[in-house]
Amino acid sequence: MASTVNKTAHSFDKTRFEALLNRRFFYAPAFEIYGGVAGLYDYGPPGSALQANIISEWRKHFIIEEGMLEVDTTIMTPSAVFETSGHVARFADWMVKDVKTGDVLRGDHLVKNVLEARLAGDREARGLEAAPVAEDPKKKKKKAAKATAVKLDDAVVQEYETILAQLDNYGGPELGELCRKHDIRNPDTDNEVGEPQQFNLMFQSSIGPTGQHKGYLRPETAQGHFLNFNRLLEYNNGRVPFASAQVGRSFRNEISPRAGLLRVREFTMAEVEHYVDPDDKSHPSFKDVRHVEIVALDKHTQEAGSSETKKITVGEAVDKGIIANETLGYFIARIYQYLINIGIDPARLRFRQHMGNEMAHYATDCWDAEIQNSYGWTECVGCADRAAYDLSVHSNKTGTPLIVRQALKEPIVTEKEVPEWNKKVMGKTFKGDAGILQKHIDSLDEAALIKLKGELAQGSAVVKTEEGKEFTLTPEVLTIERKTFKQSIREFVPNVIEPSFGLGRILYCLLEHSFWAREQDIERGVLSLPPLVAPTKVLIVPLSAREEFDPLVQEITAKLRKAGVFSRVDDSNTSIGKRYARNDELGTPYGLTIDFASVQNRTVTIRERDTMDQRIGKIDEVVATVTDLVNGNIDWAQACERLPKYDGVQAVE
Amino acid sequence: MASTVNKTAHSFDKTRFEALLNRRFFYAPAFEIYGGVAGLYDYGPPGSALQANIISEWRKHFIIEEGMLEVDTTIMTPSAVFETSGHVARFADWMVKDVKTGDVLRGDHLVKNVLEARLAGDREARGLEAAPVAEDPKKKKKKAAKATAVKLDDAVVQEYETILAQLDNYGGPELGELCRKHDIRNPDTDNEVGEPQQFNLMFQSSIGPTGQHKGYLRPETAQGHFLNFNRLLEYNNGRVPFASAQVGRSFRNEISPRAGLLRVREFTMAEVEHYVDPDDKSHPSFKDVRHVEIVALDKHTQEAGSSETKKITVGEAVDKGIIANETLGYFIARIYQYLINIGIDPARLRFRQHMGNEMAHYATDCWDAEIQNSYGWTECVGCADRAAYDLSVHSNKTGTPLIVRQALKEPIVTEKEVPEWNKKVMGKTFKGDAGILQKHIDSLDEAALIKLKGELAQGSAVVKTEEGKEFTLTPEVLTIERKTFKQSIREFVPNVIEPSFGLGRILYCLLEHSFWAREQDIERGVLSLPPLVAPTKVLIVPLSAREEFDPLVQEITAKLRKAGVFSRVDDSNTSIGKRYARNDELGTPYGLTIDFASVQNRTVTIRERDTMDQRIGKIDEVVATVTDLVNGNIDWAQACERLPKYDGVQAVE
Repeated sequence: MASTVNKTAHSFDKTRFEALLNRRFFYAPAFEIYGGVAGLYDYGPPGSALQANIISEWRKHFIIEEGMLEVDTTIMTPSAVFETSGHVARFADWMVKDVKTGDVLRGDHLVKNVLEARLAGDREARGLEAAPVAEDPKKKKKKAAKATAVKLDDAVVQEYETILAQLDNYGGPELGELCRKHDIRNPDTDNEVGEPQQFNLMFQSSIGPTGQHKGYLRPETAQGHFLNFNRLLEYNNGRVPFASAQVGRSFRNEISPRAGLLRVREFTMAEVEHYVDPDDKSHPSFKDVRHVEIVALDKHTQEAGSSETKKITVGEAVDKGIIANETLGYFIARIYQYLINIGIDPARLRFRQHMGNEMAHYATDCWDAEIQNSYGWTECVGCADRAAYDLSVHSNKTGTPLIVRQALKEPIVTEKEVPEWNKKVMGKTFKGDAGILQKHIDSLDEAALIKLKGELAQGSAVVKTEEGKEFTLTPEVLTIERKTFKQSIREFVPNVIEPSFGLGRILYCLLEHSFWAREQDIERGVLSLPPLVAPTKVLIVPLSAREEFDPLVQEITAKLRKAGVFSRVDDSNTSIGKRYARNDELGTPYGLTIDFASVQNRTVTIRERDTMDQRIGKIDEVVATVTDLVNGNIDWAQACERLPKYDGVQAVE
Repeated sequence: MASTVNKTAHSFDKTRFEALLNRRFFYAPAFEIYGGVAGLYDYGPPGSALQANIISEWRKHFIIEEGMLEVDTTIMTPSAVFETSGHVARFADWMVKDVKTGDVLRGDHLVKNVLEARLAGDREARGLEAAPVAEDPKKKKKKAAKATAVKLDDAVVQEYETILAQLDNYGGPELGELCRKHDIRNPDTDNEVGEPQQFNLMFQSSIGPTGQHKGYLRPETAQGHFLNFNRLLEYNNGRVPFASAQVGRSFRNEISPRAGLLRVREFTMAEVEHYVDPDDKSHPSFKDVRHVEIVALDKHTQEAGSSETKKITVGEAVDKGIIANETLGYFIARIYQYLINIGIDPARLRFRQHMGNEMAHYATDCWDAEIQNSYGWTECVGCADRAAYDLSVHSNKTGTPLIVRQALKEPIVTEKEVPEWNKKVMGKTFKGDAGILQKHIDSLDEAALIKLKGELAQGSAVVKTEEGKEFTLTPEVLTIERKTFKQSIREFVPNVIEPSFGLGRILYCLLEHSFWAREQDIERGVLSLPPLVAPTKVLIVPLSAREEFDPLVQEITAKLRKAGVFSRVDDSNTSIGKRYARNDELGTPYGLTIDFASVQNRTVTIRERDTMDQRIGKIDEVVATVTDLVNGNIDWAQACERLPKYDGVQAVE
């Protein structure tokens, strides 16, 4: 680990931060030379490497450590799948159009934005401090409605506040009514807006040459797991619990994407679907994570109008029923550990529970890992108990059972009355009506069967069907007997616990949390990415591109590669200081300088990114030390015990 | 490396092979419970892991070893990009419709299939052996046209053969004419087919809520590289050569996909775009690969009607001009090395050069790495010199220069005659006509300027513009002087060498090449995947799920993880023999068995998949040995020198 520097002492400078990301090509708007398309971004070399490292650590932390079954399913999906899952009907936002310009706005965002601006204006007019407009990026408008200092009636203030609190509860007609009643207009043009229309967020296409097969690009990877459930269960020898996992691209045709990587139209997700017995949601490894302390914002607190968080261990939260079950708690803890490992600031991470009216139709409990950044608190991971919803609907639709068959330790023995027909006599006696009769008898409950049995024992019985037909039955055609049934297999639809990661959002928040500037050089941005995820671990810096340094550059590169440490050489034609500055911006934690002393004495210096400390040692010593640093075996303080301070002049910055 | 077993002795049993892939969930048709969609497949756990390992080795072999710049660009692409690249106009196949059923067929496939069937029937009628129908999966029909033994006129045979040889040259109108002239019908129904229509293979969608922005799913990742060229060049400090690399999903809406993973509608590609000076396509590392011997099928051989390959070193092929340049040769060699490393059989790998009429419109030379499999020879990697095509068209379209500026070592000094105006006199004299005059003078070549200079030296000159206007010029208004120009920067559009990998095709061929069955047990399939790419490296097999084995299972798992070796435990309730058989099918190269002797003596046995040899040793010895085996440091013969043979009874199969 790199030594700690007091980074929070410097306030976050968003302009400089964004300039750095752009200059170093972490990511950039896609199709920029064509004018770009909102919500589509390309990752450049450092962004791609950072993303690859975040994914690699995710695979280790979840798939490998937990023995999950990885799948890789298609993005293009036939319409029937999303009709069944409910996405065709419900995966939509309400949009409104400016009646004159035709500009499209998200209905809920418009209402929220305009009312909040009016409330802010009211507070200003009353001489109170203007309330800060919420910075939730999901709710932010392109151009914020301007707050003008106009005092409102107390009743109006109350009404606006009530509307805002319930906003997630309104559908299109209600949003339209609100716009008319409160004269809510497009703040960009001051024009009225039309009636809200539902806009499905899935990208549509058609499959095959005749255009008759409608398809959608998946908005999440989950359905691909569920449709393969039977194969996965078989792969796992028929046993639950087990989990499938997938990293892949998903698509959402956002109405008006903004907030950079936080709301995009194409993104990489990582999703786990953990299948568990609905009657037993305990987790065998829960004991290992009981102690993990999270910052929680539960639904009751929110429903009481507060956003006060509390620190609580996952064990306590499950014991008290705040988190619904052990498996959900287990994954919340594992999500926490993962995010901290890759470098998210624990002070800016909280778990927020969904409120009753907020939860997806299928979920029974849901917690979002929210990460604070300059746009506010952003949902970066969702962790939901989806119950049996998905497997049930696909099973019902396709007629394919998606169930677990479990041998019972103790067979369940039951007795019941069973009607037994003499088919031959039955056919002869009742002919074409035999079917109606049999259906009627099959529909009788236990009590009715016992009553009928009694009547038959007395010689005959008359029964009347719903259709009004009467039949006279005798023991010759029907007997009713008590039989014993032994059930040794239990069948059930497993429940699904789903941790779902938005990797682009995590990556963005990580970059914000890692960014700072040196007090003595505010222009010089630094990304203090942990070595675990840093795009490049070690920068090799020869004093110049002179040939005499080549053998050492090659030797050190080869030794680092053998040790599994990813390094890059920067022999560009600028000063060593400038090259280090560039690599501070790229988040490279360590730099090795090769100079004339290296050629003479086989020594190199090692520089730590955050402190700019420099140490010197023999090549093999330094390679061994930097390997231990990168692998997290030692920290910089321990490295300093191994290597003396370097005070030479050649590598000053 | 696993020891070699004579696998080729057993003929390839496709039915058993496909059953294995399906049973072990390497991959399966996507949306199977919904009836599936042609050309879409999901990868299950072993398929995903195999794919991840193939990608990981690709990243090491290309991106890391060669210091390439990785990018991750979007799949959804605005229409303008593919209009410029030529895909909207040209990325299409010709389809024909059955006039009665409306069934859609690929035009060229239909013609090929029917004519080949007639030729086969002719050969049969002539008493010759029926010629085997070509098994190229790209050219194969859903239901092969049946060959019936009908003798054709010699002239007709000749005509058919000529048509087949030129098939790739025909457009839609010619294909339609062929169908009418030769009465080519849909072999499934014997109905006529309609006029060929062009069918673009890109999936179309629209971006944004108003539906006005047409978008396509990329059919290759390449354009995403090219559009970011300027950022990549800057990241590389303005220098060429360099390469960008990307692994990602692409989409092609095939008319009638078949041949399993070989022709699908959604697939993962890995592409390199190597940017090089058009005047210098040498490669600094070419010397390291000169010796690599490939099996080549050059264009001249094919154009002469032969498919005879020859072995040749890449060095010789470049020296003789068979391969166009060093950089192209370098990548052909690197592709060869990569494919062999991951386990492709070198005897079933060839490089085929595109013929003149076959090459894409932009390419100047192109070689396909073709891998032989049960469908024939399949293109799995393309390696093309795309010249300056892509960067030029995007630059022209957007007005953004996509060029390299290179400081010249020796500035180029040139002299030329330069007209210099006295603007004030010019305006006063010629007023509104000054512009026409100046334009005319600017258009004059060197000789004309010298002539004019001579006339001016004599006092005055009369010039006449294209518009027919006459002007009298004096030295007062115009002087012409010889000036020296020094050019120190050279500007050029780099050329692009593009190795492009279809990872699904490679994965499929690798599975075929790895599959065999034991002579003594033909039912038992084995996948001899190299440890480098095998989904699981080591299987840990406790004799039973009894608790007493748990500590050893955990100890060995932990030790292997620490050594970086991916293992799985199989403690399912079946015999050890059955568990090994299952893992032979999964391609797991080594198995460690834990039995009562392990608990007592801390020994475990190691089993090699291909030979089924078993050896025994102390836990740490065996862990060290299997680590060396997996990392390729030793082979099985060397492992046998370290560990004695095991002849126990507990682990017999």
